[in-house]
Order: sequence, then C-alpha cells, then structure tokens
Amino acid sequence: MTTRGILLRNARRAFGDRVDIRVRDGAIAEVGPKLEASGGDSLLLDADGALVIPGLIDGHLHLDKTLLGLPWKPHPAGPTLSERIEAEKHLRHALPLSVEDRAANLIRRVLSNGTVHLRTHVDIDPEIGLENLYGVLSARERFKDFISIQIVAFPQSGVVSCPGTAALLDEAVEAGADLVGGLDPAGIDGDPDGQLDAVFDIAERRGVGIDIHLHDRGELGTSELVLIAERTAAQGMGGRVTVSHGFCLGEVDEATFGRTAERLAESGVAILTHGPGSQAIPPINRLRAAGVTVFAGSDNIRDSWSPYGSGDMVERVMWIAYRSGFRTDQELAVAFELATIAAAKALGLDRYGLDVGCRADFVVLRGSTLGEAIVEHPRRSLVVKSGRVVAHEGTVIDPPE
Amino acid sequence: MTTRGILLRNARRAFGDRVDIRVRDGAIAEVGPKLEASGGDSLLLDADGALVIPGLIDGHLHLDKTLLGLPWKPHPAGPTLSERIEAEKHLRHALPLSVEDRAANLIRRVLSNGTVHLRTHVDIDPEIGLENLYGVLSARERFKDFISIQIVAFPQSGVVSCPGTAALLDEAVEAGADLVGGLDPAGIDGDPDGQLDAVFDIAERRGVGIDIHLHDRGELGTSELVLIAERTAAQGMGGRVTVSHGFCLGEVDEATFGRTAERLAESGVAILTHGPGSQAIPPINRLRAAGVTVFAGSDNIRDSWSPYGSGDMVERVMWIAYRSGFRTDQELAVAFELATIAAAKALGLDRYGLDVGCRADFVVLRGSTLGEAIVEHPRRSLVVKSGRVVAHEGTVIDPPE
Repeated sequence: MTTRGILLRNARRAFGDRVDIRVRDGAIAEVGPKLEASGGDSLLLDADGALVIPGLIDGHLHLDKTLLGLPWKPHPAGPTLSERIEAEKHLRHALPLSVEDRAANLIRRVLSNGTVHLRTHVDIDPEIGLENLYGVLSARERFKDFISIQIVAFPQSGVVSCPGTAALLDEAVEAGADLVGGLDPAGIDGDPDGQLDAVFDIAERRGVGIDIHLHDRGELGTSELVLIAERTAAQGMGGRVTVSHGFCLGEVDEATFGRTAERLAESGVAILTHGPGSQAIPPINRLRAAGVTVFAGSDNIRDSWSPYGSGDMVERVMWIAYRSGFRTDQELAVAFELATIAAAKALGLDRYGLDVGCRADFVVLRGSTLGEAIVEHPRRSLVVKSGRVVAHEGTVIDPPE
Repeated sequence: MTTRGILLRNARRAFGDRVDIRVRDGAIAEVGPKLEASGGDSLLLDADGALVIPGLIDGHLHLDKTLLGLPWKPHPAGPTLSERIEAEKHLRHALPLSVEDRAANLIRRVLSNGTVHLRTHVDIDPEIGLENLYGVLSARERFKDFISIQIVAFPQSGVVSCPGTAALLDEAVEAGADLVGGLDPAGIDGDPDGQLDAVFDIAERRGVGIDIHLHDRGELGTSELVLIAERTAAQGMGGRVTVSHGFCLGEVDEATFGRTAERLAESGVAILTHGPGSQAIPPINRLRAAGVTVFAGSDNIRDSWSPYGSGDMVERVMWIAYRSGFRTDQELAVAFELATIAAAKALGLDRYGLDVGCRADFVVLRGSTLGEAIVEHPRRSLVVKSGRVVAHEGTVIDPPE
C-alpha cells in the first residue's frame, strides 16, 4: 500500500480550537493552527471547520454472526441465553453468504462510520470447529489496509460443558486468533474454576490476552470478576485481560462494587460495555475513579442475537452516555474516550491519537464541538487510516473485492 | 389550504404487502394492491417498494425549551430537578431567539422526520406568565397546515408551592392551551392533594384534559398514580388523562405494580414514556396487558434539561424497544404503536391510520419491513399531512416564513 502526503486544513478539535494536520508516511507529521502547504502534500483536504477526532475503535463485535446485507431476518430466538445459542446454531446452516462475506459487509459498515480498529469475537465450538475463524481471518486479510482487527477465539457454547472446546480454542490461537475468550464460567459451565483454568492456561502457554463475556448477574457475577482478577494478577497479565459486559457491576451494593472495582483496578482487568438496553450498565465514572479501564464496543449488529446496531461508534457513545445519565460536555467527553483512548489502551494500540508521531488515523465529521457531534452523530465526511483515505461521505473508497 | 388528488404507488405495509393509496380532499379515498391512475390524481408518487406508515405522533415535547438551531450550549445544570429548573430560569433570559422561533425550529425538525401530530408542554409560572404560551400559540398558527399541536399548560415550578400558578394555568387554558398539566404533586409541591385538587378543578371547569409529569420514585410515585386514577374516575375523565414518565412503574414490586396498573386501566389514565436513559422504563407489555394505554414522545430535545434528542419518532421507537428488551418483529411493532395508534388514542385523534376514510397523513421510508425501518430509521422519503406533501427527503416543503 502506498500512502500520500496529506494536509488537512480548517479542522476543529474536540473543544473547538482550529487545527491543521500534516501526514507523512502514514503518521501525523505536524499539527498546528495554520500550516503552509508544501511540495510533499499531494492531497490537500479542507475540513471547512468540521471536527477532527482520532480513528474510532470498536472494542467488541461479532463479525461472524452478522446478517447485515441479507434480507431482514425477524429475530428468531426465545429470551434465554441457551435459546439464543440454539437458535443461532439452527440459523447458521441456512445462510446464503459465507462468514467472510458477511464479515466484510459489517467491516464496510463500521469503516464508513470511522472505525479503523476493532476487536471481534469469533465462535469456536466442536460443531463449527475453526470454520468461522477462517472466514474472519480471510476478511481481516482482505481489509488489512483499511482496518486493524483483533480476533478473540470465543467459546459461545461453553468450555467445560462442551467437551473438545478447550483444545479448539488452543488451535484457534495457533491458527491466528489474538486472544482467547470465555463465557459466563458459572452461568454457562457451572464451573468457574474449570473454565478459567482452561482459558488462563491457553493464554499463558500461547502468550495471548483474554476477553471473557460475563452476563452472570449480581454477586454471582462479581464473584467471577474477583476470580478473573486473581488469576490475572497471578499470571502477571495486567493490561491484557478484558471482561465484556459485566452487567453485575451495575447491580450490586456499594460495598461489593467497591471491593470488586478495587480488585479489577489492581490486577489490570478492563471492562467493556456496549450500553445495554434492558440490563444494568456498569457505572462508568465510578469504575474510572477506582482506576479501572472502561471501553466500548457495538456487540451484536443485526444478527440472531439482536436486531439492533448501526456499527457507528459515535452513536454508540451517545447511547452509553444516555444510559449513564451523562449530560455535560465533560461527561460526553468521558463517554467518547471509551471508543478512543481508553479502547486504545485496552487493545494495546500504540501511537494512538492526534499528536505528532501518532499513526495517521482520524475522522472528520460536522459539529462545532465534540458534544454536538456525539448527539447528532452525522455522516462521517472523511475517514483516514494510516494516512490513506478509506471512506468519504459515508462511502468506503476502493474497498477490496 | 388546497390539497390535490394524490396516487401513491408501489408502497409496502408494515409486514411486507404491496399497496397503492389514493388521496382525495385530504383523506384516504382508496387503498388496494394495484390502483389505476385517474384524472383526479394530479400528483403521482412512486414509493419504489418503500414502506408506508401512518403519520407519526410525538406525545410529549417541550417546544418552548428547545435550543435547536442555536450554537451548541453545553449542559448547564446540576443533577437535581430543582437545579435544572433554576438553570433554565437563568438561561432563558439570555436567548437570542424568541420562543416562537425556537419552537418553529423544532417543528421543522420533527416534520422532516414524519411527525404530523404532537403534544407539547409549555412552561407557565408567575415569572414568565403566559409569554411562552403565546410564543407556542403563534408557532402553532404558522404551522397549522403542516402539523396538529396540542398544548399543555405546564407548571414547571410547581402549583401549590408557587403561588399564583393555579390562576395562570386557568388563564392559559382560556388563552388556548388544550390541556392542563401538573408536576410531581408530592416531590415538587409536597402536597399531592393540593396540586391535584387545583389541576382537576381547572380541567373540570374548563372541560379540558390533563397531562401530569411524574418523576417521583417507587411507591411514592405509584401512590400518586392511584390518587390521579381516583380523581379521573370521580370526574368521569377516563381517556382524557395522561401521566408522563411514571418511572415508578418500573421500580415497584409485582403486587404494587399490578394494583396500580389495574387502577390506571379502570379509570382510563394513559402512560407516556420517552424511553429514559438512566431511569427505569415503565414495563410496556405488562401495562398493555393490564389494559393501560401506553404511548411515546421525545421529551426534551437539545435544551437545558437534556443535550440529547433528534426529533425522530422512529428512532425514539427503537430506543424504547431497546430499553424494553424487545427483539422480535412483533415486539418492535408494539413499540411502533406507541408513536402511532396508541398515541392517537391518547391524544383523542380521530380518523387515524391507513384505512379508507382516514385523514391522509402518512410517511414513506426505506425498509423491507417495519422492523428493519425501525432499526435503520432512514431519512423519510415523503411526509404527507392531510393530503399535502409537507416534507421530502428530509426537507420540509415550503415551510411558513
């Protein structure tokens, strides 16, 4: 891939100051209130006073599950987790598009909205083996110049309770998955130690991070968070372990919350939220105050788990802020960090941001301030990834076949 | 206003069947799978397979509060109700646009999204008197061919605790308000009977309906709902009383909920929800099963109470559905009724819907089914009010000066 020298002019930063940005060799070379064009600027872009923000990060997607791009599929499942797992197994045999093509549809959607880094969970179980993983690996390769993708080997049907899965998770990491996942060690496997032993063992042997789905409620959930924190500390994996969802953190009493948040912070376990609709949302400000990294993702988009989801992390930030009772510009800015700098920290992305030396990943969108852009979440005028214009006015530019 | 004969062809109803609609004299004259054009069809419209839905209803707005159209204003208030009331009083002295012009900005926004009926609350207190009411009355007159507007005289600063307000509410109804409002009879006035006596007295003498804001929590709130139901029954006002918000219904135990819902249903008190972010949402399906009318509105849009809100009732329906844990097409259709037929019932609108004889109020938008349209809530292709095209592709047509 070749990238050109870019000069972006007349942009505005989060709280309103004007800025020009010069890009060289895929990185931010210069930032200032008024930069002169030079010979190396082969692409001159005028933001016309619009906002420039760092490239967005979607910390939790299911690229292999999405039905985006297919005709509307009414939600097929009953209300329980196990009914949804079964409904999905039934559905996936009858889909007219491959995992790779469906993943590509969702990647194009999130790219058009300015997401240039994402973490996806990919189902691994004895029935599908590594098939979904291979599909997502192919999609990742196709879009490698457009977006960076971390893959979590995700045991959607359980680990201990689904014999053969642990070995497949290990194989999945060998085949290219970047992290190993888990799912409700108590609620799904009925054996918290058993599942966590298996997951942490793979992580240790393979040298990869961990991202565990946790829907278990109340004090059952927080007791699992403590187990995860203990193992994270014991294996020295601080900063490389995430628990996704963690609704329980919004359900327990003050004292239990405080103790749990402290353990998460000490051990370096991050919390991912998608801004749930009908479950409790983890208390973002209190977690951050305790020193816990909190970041954001879309979760299911138009799949057999959920009919919702736009693939727009600015809109997602608004939902999370709305669910959190955030109203001030400062609170909206906190929510925005969940899809930008906090997510970069959780995903271990370096050179992230709008400073000189950072990777030239940025997004331009209308809005006089960050708060207004979050609330209106207008179409993205421009999306730049490593110095390459990957989307313009909501359309991906020269997407791979 | 003159309206022309219209033939809308190639539209699709909520669950996918194709339909043509003929309009004469502002009403739906004919509906069928394939209608032939006739001489009276001076306007032929092709929906190209897009969805046609009834004109949308926003059951709860604050036209006098919005800052839409002004430069972004960071949220100025602290977290309590009384801090927000004070912040607003401070802010409203310094606004560069009149109430009428700000109301017009929001009316244009909701119109572009297909809302053709709305109920707005307008602040009444001894400091502003009827000034906001006059502004909203003027805006209503300007847009009378575009949208129908019900006005609630709303005692934002309380009734009993704010001497002089009751008389002003009465004057407001005489001056053109269609309903009388209330606000947390316990939480704001500390005198539930006192406030409700005053409000129901005005309603009885003036022959108008009632719409009361209720934020009071838990069993305090449900006890006020019972008081309101009792007075509604005693005055024979069933079907003409609304309680807006009623977060308490999502907070109390099963038995208290059941008793309260039964009283609301028997007496004919409707519940309005905007799909709150950080408060409990009333349980929609359980209220409907008990026989309570539940409908939807936007509440605050870009004002000193909330930075959020798009003025799009299809998006609002999605938020409400998401907050309610709705996933199936049937559940999404229930949520949709809150902004259409259930709202029409609560507002007492006759001839509502897509049947022959109904007022020709309809909206065309992309989507193969209602579920998809709700989730994607795309730009409205066409908005027709009483047989007149009032918006096209997101733009209001010939808005009044």
